[in-house]
Amino acid sequence: MYLEKVNQPADIRGLNNDELKGLAGEMRKALLFRLSRHGGHLGPNFGMVETIIALHYVFDSPNDKFVFDVSHQSYCHKMLTGRKNAYLYEEHFEDVSGYTNPEESEHDFFNVGHTSTSVSLACGLAKARDLKGGSENIIAVIGDGSLSGGEALEGIDFASELESNFIIVVNDNDMSIAENHGGLYKNLKQLRESGGTCECNLFRAMGLDYVYLAEGNDIEKLIQVFRKVKDTTRPIVVHIHTQKGKGCSFAEQKKEDWHWCMPFDAETGESLAVFEGEDYGTITQEFLTEKMKKDPTVITIVAAVPTNIGFTEEKRKEAGKQFVDVGIAEEHAVAFASGIAAGGGKPVFATHSSFIQRTYDQLSQDLCVNGNAATILVNTASVYGMNDVTHLGIFDIPLIANIPNMVYLAPTNKEEYLAMLDWSIEQNEHPVAIRIPCNGVVSVKEKVETDYGHLNRYQVKEQGRNIAILALGDFYQLGEDVAKAIKEKSGIMPTLINPRYITGLDEELLEKLKEDHDSIITLEDGILDGGFGEKIARYYGPSGLKVYNYGLKKEFLDRYNVEEVLRDNRLTVPRILEDVLK
Amino acid sequence: MYLEKVNQPADIRGLNNDELKGLAGEMRKALLFRLSRHGGHLGPNFGMVETIIALHYVFDSPNDKFVFDVSHQSYCHKMLTGRKNAYLYEEHFEDVSGYTNPEESEHDFFNVGHTSTSVSLACGLAKARDLKGGSENIIAVIGDGSLSGGEALEGIDFASELESNFIIVVNDNDMSIAENHGGLYKNLKQLRESGGTCECNLFRAMGLDYVYLAEGNDIEKLIQVFRKVKDTTRPIVVHIHTQKGKGCSFAEQKKEDWHWCMPFDAETGESLAVFEGEDYGTITQEFLTEKMKKDPTVITIVAAVPTNIGFTEEKRKEAGKQFVDVGIAEEHAVAFASGIAAGGGKPVFATHSSFIQRTYDQLSQDLCVNGNAATILVNTASVYGMNDVTHLGIFDIPLIANIPNMVYLAPTNKEEYLAMLDWSIEQNEHPVAIRIPCNGVVSVKEKVETDYGHLNRYQVKEQGRNIAILALGDFYQLGEDVAKAIKEKSGIMPTLINPRYITGLDEELLEKLKEDHDSIITLEDGILDGGFGEKIARYYGPSGLKVYNYGLKKEFLDRYNVEEVLRDNRLTVPRILEDVLK
Repeated sequence: MYLEKVNQPADIRGLNNDELKGLAGEMRKALLFRLSRHGGHLGPNFGMVETIIALHYVFDSPNDKFVFDVSHQSYCHKMLTGRKNAYLYEEHFEDVSGYTNPEESEHDFFNVGHTSTSVSLACGLAKARDLKGGSENIIAVIGDGSLSGGEALEGIDFASELESNFIIVVNDNDMSIAENHGGLYKNLKQLRESGGTCECNLFRAMGLDYVYLAEGNDIEKLIQVFRKVKDTTRPIVVHIHTQKGKGCSFAEQKKEDWHWCMPFDAETGESLAVFEGEDYGTITQEFLTEKMKKDPTVITIVAAVPTNIGFTEEKRKEAGKQFVDVGIAEEHAVAFASGIAAGGGKPVFATHSSFIQRTYDQLSQDLCVNGNAATILVNTASVYGMNDVTHLGIFDIPLIANIPNMVYLAPTNKEEYLAMLDWSIEQNEHPVAIRIPCNGVVSVKEKVETDYGHLNRYQVKEQGRNIAILALGDFYQLGEDVAKAIKEKSGIMPTLINPRYITGLDEELLEKLKEDHDSIITLEDGILDGGFGEKIARYYGPSGLKVYNYGLKKEFLDRYNVEEVLRDNRLTVPRILEDVLK
Repeated sequence: MYLEKVNQPADIRGLNNDELKGLAGEMRKALLFRLSRHGGHLGPNFGMVETIIALHYVFDSPNDKFVFDVSHQSYCHKMLTGRKNAYLYEEHFEDVSGYTNPEESEHDFFNVGHTSTSVSLACGLAKARDLKGGSENIIAVIGDGSLSGGEALEGIDFASELESNFIIVVNDNDMSIAENHGGLYKNLKQLRESGGTCECNLFRAMGLDYVYLAEGNDIEKLIQVFRKVKDTTRPIVVHIHTQKGKGCSFAEQKKEDWHWCMPFDAETGESLAVFEGEDYGTITQEFLTEKMKKDPTVITIVAAVPTNIGFTEEKRKEAGKQFVDVGIAEEHAVAFASGIAAGGGKPVFATHSSFIQRTYDQLSQDLCVNGNAATILVNTASVYGMNDVTHLGIFDIPLIANIPNMVYLAPTNKEEYLAMLDWSIEQNEHPVAIRIPCNGVVSVKEKVETDYGHLNRYQVKEQGRNIAILALGDFYQLGEDVAKAIKEKSGIMPTLINPRYITGLDEELLEKLKEDHDSIITLEDGILDGGFGEKIARYYGPSGLKVYNYGLKKEFLDRYNVEEVLRDNRLTVPRILEDVLK
């Protein structure tokens, strides 16, 4: 029993090699224990057990400072830095987040959940050290998958300018979330095959010193190589070859499936999560697969998260050249899509709301300045999306909807979503983004419009009076509930509107509402600041009409309970009635 | 006289080598003619005359397609594609923009003004060609300075996945706007010094084929090398060594000064532009230089545009290790600044409003999620800023001000700006961005506040009644004029407020205004969508108070006249009075 006794990194430094191996075994058991019950990032953490032990054995954290890229591989780091209980005892699971977190420990320096940031952030720590005259080691840890991201490449290129102590550990397990994509992976392969000796070397070409270790799951050898680079006075890359999912048989076999997991049977790997009914990922994949079969110029693009929209390995193969995973390279994905549209193709790029944040300038300059007709699918864009502070899906409306020329659509159900997607692919006039609903799949049997080319025409679903409800996207169903409740309470049916277009105002309709309405309610599933409702408030500003905007406060929520957040933001039928009918 | 006869690229294909050299001479004369009278990008265009001639000689534009990165080097391309008059005759100067522009010519495929995008955009054209079964050549042209940008590196990494015809011409003149920064430039140097033969090769390490040409200003040799790669069936880099400013003696000497120019004496190079009085660049540089002398942990960061805030070569040297130019790598710059702040340093990163667009995710994730106290200076953030469609400074408020934890400040004059900057550098609580005024330097002799830590307290400059004017940043002076005019016209002094904080509401003050005001005017120097005024409109939405938001429409303006744009947006005293007093 070693892990039980580890309260700080120094506690492992008295262990001999066999004991460290024993510790590694216990850490894998602890990972399996937590992950099988709680879910989380499995493959990256299993592969990095030995590296984390060796890092903490050689370096003196928190004086020496580690920055873990995307921090998918930080669980073992947490175990060795006073947070082991979160992996050993179910009642302590919630003590830690799934990412490094300075609020948890002095051994964590950044709250990190997006990829490709560790080198730049660590460069900052190194520069601060140099300005202050310190001498500690600064170590950035980055996986091979993250290397294709622009921010990582900018950081690696910059690192050599530091001309002082700086260590980049490249954890090369020959995998991204799915397989890697990009030319640099050919070089990593050459480096692995030549034992790091081939002359053509990406890292050296970026001005960095370099060492290679083939045995990235061998604690003794890792300790040797880290000792060798400790206190280096020049930036250096330590390229280590590890095995993703190492020590977890099913994860070793099926690396993509086990990058991240829901709770599962620890013996068999059988998932314990139960999915019933339809999901928008599969709906999207089936629609696009069909579309691509019929039209060879339609192309689906993802940035390292293909199953996000249902494209499993099998479905990717089926799509062939009409499916492109650009790797972790969202900026490239958007510009690439713009170029395809300019060349007469019909590109659809899909990613998470949280990751589209990486592409503001590409959406603006590469796509919208040029008015190219690419389609951007934004998913998990909702309070119902991912709930880690680094993966929130509630900021995309201010990000996307304030870019000129962009048409950002908010479907309210499955049929409307597919009609919008179909229209967007076939039209040649506008850059279009579509906010995939995230409140479960609502199916309506009614006919939906198929031409969205007459921009900014809102749809009146129920003509009433006094109060008008503009219920956007997946808060449309909430709008229906509010309408019903107002009718019940006041006896007067309010007008219920599906705005459909986030990016523009239906001024004709808004003007007409003035005739027999005195209050307007807007509902949107995102922050209010810079959002849809504020545009309506601005429109009615000079009129004296009352406008009530409902949405989320501008804040970084973390591991939140959806119902609580909705209550806090008065996003419930009783609270809305209380405000509007008073 | 060759140029006069060139109406399309085919017209140069009958010329022999001597005649092509004659054409090059005439093109340089035309460049000098236009640039000395009109201003524009000088160094990049002078250095690329021969390359552009050779490209159009070998390839068949617009069937074969060129994509010019940042398109600073596209003037000669325009001369050879039917637009020569814009360089030969003053009355035709305005026929063309300073960038490639599909509205001008079928030889241009994208409107491009931000760097590092050409490879990704051209990858898109290549993919569209492959989907459609075409066989034309796709050629991306990119300068060495642009290579450090994340989007370019993502694109280069992806390019090898195309596995079909794709040519990247790397125009290496060993300069960015200022000198290059980053480790990859050491590799470019090795490649130049070894005639392209050294084994360690950035481009090969990214999976690409590669050829090198030392004589990048020799038309004959350029034609040879382009002929060699024409119709390649695999992605290939053609690395050419050119001389920035070639053929313009003063530009050859002072490369940084002549990257871009205002009108000048064509004989002597003497600038014809007259600057009088203070400018915010120099004010910023002087303040930061002083600050850095006093405190070795203060550090100024720029991304390739150092003179933007007054840091000439001399001033950069003076600042030493406390000045860092990261090269064209804005994403890295923000994450780096966040890391420095986390490590106890005091970073100030300055760039243009248009270029900060590249950093939304870094501002959000690397900086604001972590709440690190870095300072971001945003300049040319104004309708008075740069007026090309690719360089507009009117979108930064929706971009920055809707990120949680960010404090975005809008100073209204020089003293307030410096007080805010000083406060921001010294505090440890908040990520802060400051919107440098852009309507000329207004100096007030009055004392300004020095502690902005009590967030979101607006400043009442004039207590009046009925109407309140919230005049943000450099539209404060317009607010003063409106206040005066209202007083004159109605006899009642309105309340005049300097909001100072773009990111939050002074709810106490806004609530109090309800007591004796019935109308609120907001003024902001940027687009209204997602901006400051809409937050005020939302606040007063349920109150029945009238709110009038003034700012710019959400649109991509291009080469506009400021007065016209202000008039079109009713941003003049008479129009505002007409709206509010009716």
